[in-house]
Amino acid sequence: MASSLLSRQLVLSLQQNLRFTAPGCRYVSKAAAKTQMEFEYDGPSMKTEVPGPRSKELTKQLGEMQNVGAINFFCNYEESRGNYLVDVDGNRMLDVYTQISSIPIGYNHPSLIKVMSNPNNMSAFVNRPALGIMPPENFPEKLAESLLSVAPSGMSRVQTMACGSCSNENAYKAMFIWYRVSTYKAMFIWYRNKERGHNIPSDEDMSSCMINQNPGCPDLSILSFMGGFHGRTMGCLATTHSKAIHKLDVPSFDWPIAPFPKLKYPLEEFTRENAQEEARCLEEVEDLIVQWRQKGRPVAGIVIEPIQAEGGDNHATPDFFKKLRNIARKHGCAFHLDEVQTGGGATGKFWAHEHWGMDDPADIVSFSKKMLTGGFYHKDELQADKAYRIFNTWMGDPSKNLFLAEVLNVIRRENLLEEVTRSGKTLLQGLYQLQDQYPNLLSSARGQGTFCAIDIRDDATRNSIILKARDKGVLLGGCGDRSIRFRPALVFKEYHVHMFLNVFSDVLAEHN
Amino acid sequence: MASSLLSRQLVLSLQQNLRFTAPGCRYVSKAAAKTQMEFEYDGPSMKTEVPGPRSKELTKQLGEMQNVGAINFFCNYEESRGNYLVDVDGNRMLDVYTQISSIPIGYNHPSLIKVMSNPNNMSAFVNRPALGIMPPENFPEKLAESLLSVAPSGMSRVQTMACGSCSNENAYKAMFIWYRVSTYKAMFIWYRNKERGHNIPSDEDMSSCMINQNPGCPDLSILSFMGGFHGRTMGCLATTHSKAIHKLDVPSFDWPIAPFPKLKYPLEEFTRENAQEEARCLEEVEDLIVQWRQKGRPVAGIVIEPIQAEGGDNHATPDFFKKLRNIARKHGCAFHLDEVQTGGGATGKFWAHEHWGMDDPADIVSFSKKMLTGGFYHKDELQADKAYRIFNTWMGDPSKNLFLAEVLNVIRRENLLEEVTRSGKTLLQGLYQLQDQYPNLLSSARGQGTFCAIDIRDDATRNSIILKARDKGVLLGGCGDRSIRFRPALVFKEYHVHMFLNVFSDVLAEHN
Repeated sequence: MASSLLSRQLVLSLQQNLRFTAPGCRYVSKAAAKTQMEFEYDGPSMKTEVPGPRSKELTKQLGEMQNVGAINFFCNYEESRGNYLVDVDGNRMLDVYTQISSIPIGYNHPSLIKVMSNPNNMSAFVNRPALGIMPPENFPEKLAESLLSVAPSGMSRVQTMACGSCSNENAYKAMFIWYRVSTYKAMFIWYRNKERGHNIPSDEDMSSCMINQNPGCPDLSILSFMGGFHGRTMGCLATTHSKAIHKLDVPSFDWPIAPFPKLKYPLEEFTRENAQEEARCLEEVEDLIVQWRQKGRPVAGIVIEPIQAEGGDNHATPDFFKKLRNIARKHGCAFHLDEVQTGGGATGKFWAHEHWGMDDPADIVSFSKKMLTGGFYHKDELQADKAYRIFNTWMGDPSKNLFLAEVLNVIRRENLLEEVTRSGKTLLQGLYQLQDQYPNLLSSARGQGTFCAIDIRDDATRNSIILKARDKGVLLGGCGDRSIRFRPALVFKEYHVHMFLNVFSDVLAEHN
Repeated sequence: MASSLLSRQLVLSLQQNLRFTAPGCRYVSKAAAKTQMEFEYDGPSMKTEVPGPRSKELTKQLGEMQNVGAINFFCNYEESRGNYLVDVDGNRMLDVYTQISSIPIGYNHPSLIKVMSNPNNMSAFVNRPALGIMPPENFPEKLAESLLSVAPSGMSRVQTMACGSCSNENAYKAMFIWYRVSTYKAMFIWYRNKERGHNIPSDEDMSSCMINQNPGCPDLSILSFMGGFHGRTMGCLATTHSKAIHKLDVPSFDWPIAPFPKLKYPLEEFTRENAQEEARCLEEVEDLIVQWRQKGRPVAGIVIEPIQAEGGDNHATPDFFKKLRNIARKHGCAFHLDEVQTGGGATGKFWAHEHWGMDDPADIVSFSKKMLTGGFYHKDELQADKAYRIFNTWMGDPSKNLFLAEVLNVIRRENLLEEVTRSGKTLLQGLYQLQDQYPNLLSSARGQGTFCAIDIRDDATRNSIILKARDKGVLLGGCGDRSIRFRPALVFKEYHVHMFLNVFSDVLAEHN
């Protein structure tokens, strides 16, 4: 029985850990054996339709408590292992969606179980601190060991948050504050030169902000892109433009929205057309920045995903991002890369933006999902000028940092970025082949690492393919109007790719 | 050594649990012995000034990574017990602030450690699911056992979220959606009667919302109160009006802000003046609703805290809330009680609004902090009409529900609400006495349960008193302009109150 398997695992590692808790003897995760493989199943195994009877029963139960319209099925997480998700009806599926791309190294990874069973870690789970005022002793060390060990180029500062939306909301606030403080500074210098110095922020700033009014709450804006997704709280939602259902009925801000390039794939075959399309979009970005400045809502920051995920896995070239970064610089806008979905290794580099080879890729990089904690990195100058401006009760969760530190150890120890690159190549090659084989069904195979996608003829066929694949034991997710996105864990090996391609091929044959 | 104490505790409970994991033998937390007392210290013990040298060193380290302007000191959570927080310099303080009111039953409560060490719970920590699509098998059961077992009157539905801000953001969205769907329904019936039926939402709704414009993103508003605090993400922030530093430089919405009654304490001595003040505020609320409807930004919902916490522990009477609830009903606005800080038992009832004795207190009640997970309860009709409207990747964290279920067990088993009522009375009596003794220093002692506060002569004296109390081993927090708020855990007994009052009295003597 799996739970007794887990129990034995726990007791074993607990006994080992207790031996190591003598003073001076730190728990060293690198010493852990490579035991992941013993834990994985050898393939999917389907017992019922999905959702099966038990899932249906539980969905009905949960339906008395919440909206269950989005529930796919209920899971037995105890029995799930590595790339395999087991549901409550005993169906075992190869997971190529991983909880909307948020499981970094598969289910029940032994190294994560060890984190749980290490008594030194216990109090981080039981006593959640208010990190902004009273952090635990090991907080700086754990930040250094986890988040800062993978900090994007040029960024030495990081702020954790509880989820992706909070990360982006606070990143936007950091950009607004930075924009205003910079403007103040410039004004101050200018005024001082004219011997007209004034107090900053002014009394009017302080009183007007309390009632949501200018100048304290200024008419600043964030420029975002059509098709982008940055979360669903109201600030984030004003920059999210992927599906109407996310935005409908919720008041929003009058902020500029630029077109995201609609490229042809494979990118290398359409370089000239794609370059034209990207130039068109960049021109529009500059126009919008000027327009919004003129109408009194200057653009404080630009937010963009390295690959638009929710919006349909839309790619742009490194050249586009380099030029966009320059436009931000030229117009004094902060540049924010939202790596909530692209970050954490799935593209074969830890951050998707590393593929562009830039020393100064952004001012802010936000993350969540596979990073297990939300948060954002930022350059020194983007740090709020005063305490309590970027703040809330929890400011993240140190127990998630413990898991993240161990995930990073596993990624390094098992060379998972190389693995992802290898699996990703095989996956994309396989998709190209299937696309050649089914030209009426498939198009635009694309991807970086295992962060791949393919377009299906239409929405209905896409949804049917996803359901059929699920019935055959492969779990997929959609994105955009008619794409399938592939979001396996970083432990998705080449043989998993082949297993997936076989099932996918069967499903496509049925749809041709 | 404390960590070896914890280790022994873990091994012991693990061994017990393993014995119970035979089929059919569920882990029954009620069987746990009342062991909390063995775990608590017998009083504060101060070794250094606070922050001490180790805290200062760590603050410097963390300062290389984040803004540390709000850091008080670093904690040794392993050594902390019950009502005592231990810092990294070995100072042990009686905690009357509890991580901004977010530790429900004290530090390292043995029952919570048992939750951690129960192997059946392990996978909830290691595999964080996307709860909105693939919840774990025990999710409905755990919701029923935890959140729904303490659901406010009239509410059978609950949606978990990762934090307080996300809870309120999503509650606002639920109110906007409800408002529009109700309006649509009314329109639809009206149109159908006139045989002019139209599609809802319209194509125009769907396309305009994608670019943040009317009618898809309608000009609806939430009415909030001056002095209120509802979080710091941009939707929440538009309803937060407690301190300028929270809001400065962040764009906001043109939403109505009503005055919150400024009452005189003790409430029972000023009933007539207070009733007049409340009537004035209620009149203003109605005026604002009408004004905002007239200017095309109808009020979809009203949000209010039962006691304005961050804004200065401002109370209003049950009569005020009953009348406000009626105004909301009369004008077709949803009524949202933000119990993020007041909820979870500190007022002596599980929800502060229970003190008003209403059958239908609200349409939405949001929570976080002591509940260990964010979220909101709502009435059936406030459930979004479609899936994926109130949604995000994680939708909370089931590991927090496990802890919450156990916290609720402890509250029931140890009759903590009675305990809080008893301690609260003693605390408030003590504050009244001190206030009589130091009339130039203290005023307006007030509170419900242990959720108490007192005003200090001025801001500088308040801050000095808080620091002096800390030096003597009592941890306090401020709120509003010049108040001290008392936010002990629910295990704060009468003898803790006396211990606090003694220290507080000494500190006041120094300030007189």
